Amino acid sequence: MFPNKKVQKIVGSRVLVEMKGDTNLLEGTLSTVDDYMNLHLVDTVEIVNGQKERSLKSVVLRGNNIILITPVDE
Amino acid sequence: MFPNKKVQKIVGSRVLVEMKGDTNLLEGTLSTVDDYMNLHLVDTVEIVNGQKERSLKSVVLRGNNIILITPVDE
Amino acid sequence: MFPNKKVQKIVGSRVLVEMKGDTNLLEGTLSTVDDYMNLHLVDTVEIVNGQKERSLKSVVLRGNNIILITPVDE
Amino acid sequence: MFPNKKVQKIVGSRVLVEMKGDTNLLEGTLSTVDDYMNLHLVDTVEIVNGQKERSLKSVVLRGNNIILITPVDE
Amino acid sequence: MFPNKKVQKIVGSRVLVEMKGDTNLLEGTLSTVDDYMNLHLVDTVEIVNGQKERSLKSVVLRGNNIILITPVDE
Amino acid sequence: MFPNKKVQKIVGSRVLVEMKGDTNLLEGTLSTVDDYMNLHLVDTVEIVNGQKERSLKSVVLRGNNIILITPVDE
Repeated sequence: MFPNKKVQKIVGSRVLVEMKGDTNLLEGTLSTVDDYMNLHLVDTVEIVNGQKERSLKSVVLRGNNIILITPVDE
Repeated sequence: MFPNKKVQKIVGSRVLVEMKGDTNLLEGTLSTVDDYMNLHLVDTVEIVNGQKERSLKSVVLRGNNIILITPVDE
Repeated sequence: MFPNKKVQKIVGSRVLVEMKGDTNLLEGTLSTVDDYMNLHLVDTVEIVNGQKERSLKSVVLRGNNIILITPVDE
Repeated sequence: MFPNKKVQKIVGSRVLVEMKGDTNLLEGTLSTVDDYMNLHLVDTVEIVNGQKERSLKSVVLRGNNIILITPVDE
Repeated sequence: MFPNKKVQKIVGSRVLVEMKGDTNLLEGTLSTVDDYMNLHLVDTVEIVNGQKERSLKSVVLRGNNIILITPVDE
Repeated sequence: MFPNKKVQKIVGSRVLVEMKGDTNLLEGTLSTVDDYMNLHLVDTVEIVNGQKERSLKSVVLRGNNIILITPVDE
């Protein structure tokens, strides 16, 4: 399964996303993804030092600044 | 709703945008967005350490340097 | 007005441009802009700690490394 | 063999991937790769200071943030 | 004159190029440039703290990692 | 000679490549290059503080994270 398809398959699940920049770790429910891996997450929280810190709710992430996407084990 | 559409839907609202680089947190009214997520914000302020710091008024942001976009709760 | 059009509209004006990298703040007269937001500035000065520091005169800036563009109030 | 083909040829093998950002070294089994060098790794571990640290299992990596890919000698 | 044309016009001249990364300031004779602003410089020297430090002779620079290009006053 | 052609011409030679990220200086024999300047190097060593440090053998480098490519004088 191609990397993009792998991401599309987990729409609706909780995901952990590492970004470039200062707010670099986010956990949210993956609402949508497009061909550039731009993501729309809902119920999003920022993770700082392993703690759920700041609630960002609905967030759009720019695909080219994503380092990695991984499903959250629940 | 695809990530780009989600951003288009909040045109006219206050948004918080995290950028790469030194001026990394901006709050403004989203005036326009294009397919690359380039943004035009008006009534923009730079946020430093949680404080509204510097007024930048009309600002164009390069899409590929955007980390995340989130609506401001009002 | 789309972000690109907004930049085209201020050709001929003084602009402040924040870049990625070490020379990150430049003020100059916007001579031309293309679809990638590559910019040609003339009468350019580098701003360091709020001071006009180094004169760079004619400078070409690579669009993808631009963080933000804002008109200078005069 | 072109760089992309070289990566396709090692699908199914253990690879070491250096990324930009904080989680910058990952070892995993290369499951799939696309034309942008987006990767899907399984059985992935994060390497910190030469130690296998954090298990991330299934991970999608954004191609443009990959620095290098090298096969793991086994 | 569009930014790309401005760069093409100074082929054959000495230019100063600021790059992202550690070797960030280079002075060389601009040999060729393509549409992505990839550059080929000859007689190149790396500038560190304003001093000509390391001779790199023939160097290819990746356009997307260029911050700015400016002609050297001679 | 365009920058891309210049790189194609040195296929088979030893090259020094500066990358973004932590493993930023690599010396290897250039095996292949594509239009995005993705590179496949063989007999690669990582250079740290001017010393040949870590042998990486066969390595694929993502073109957009290359700062510069220069032939090694031998």
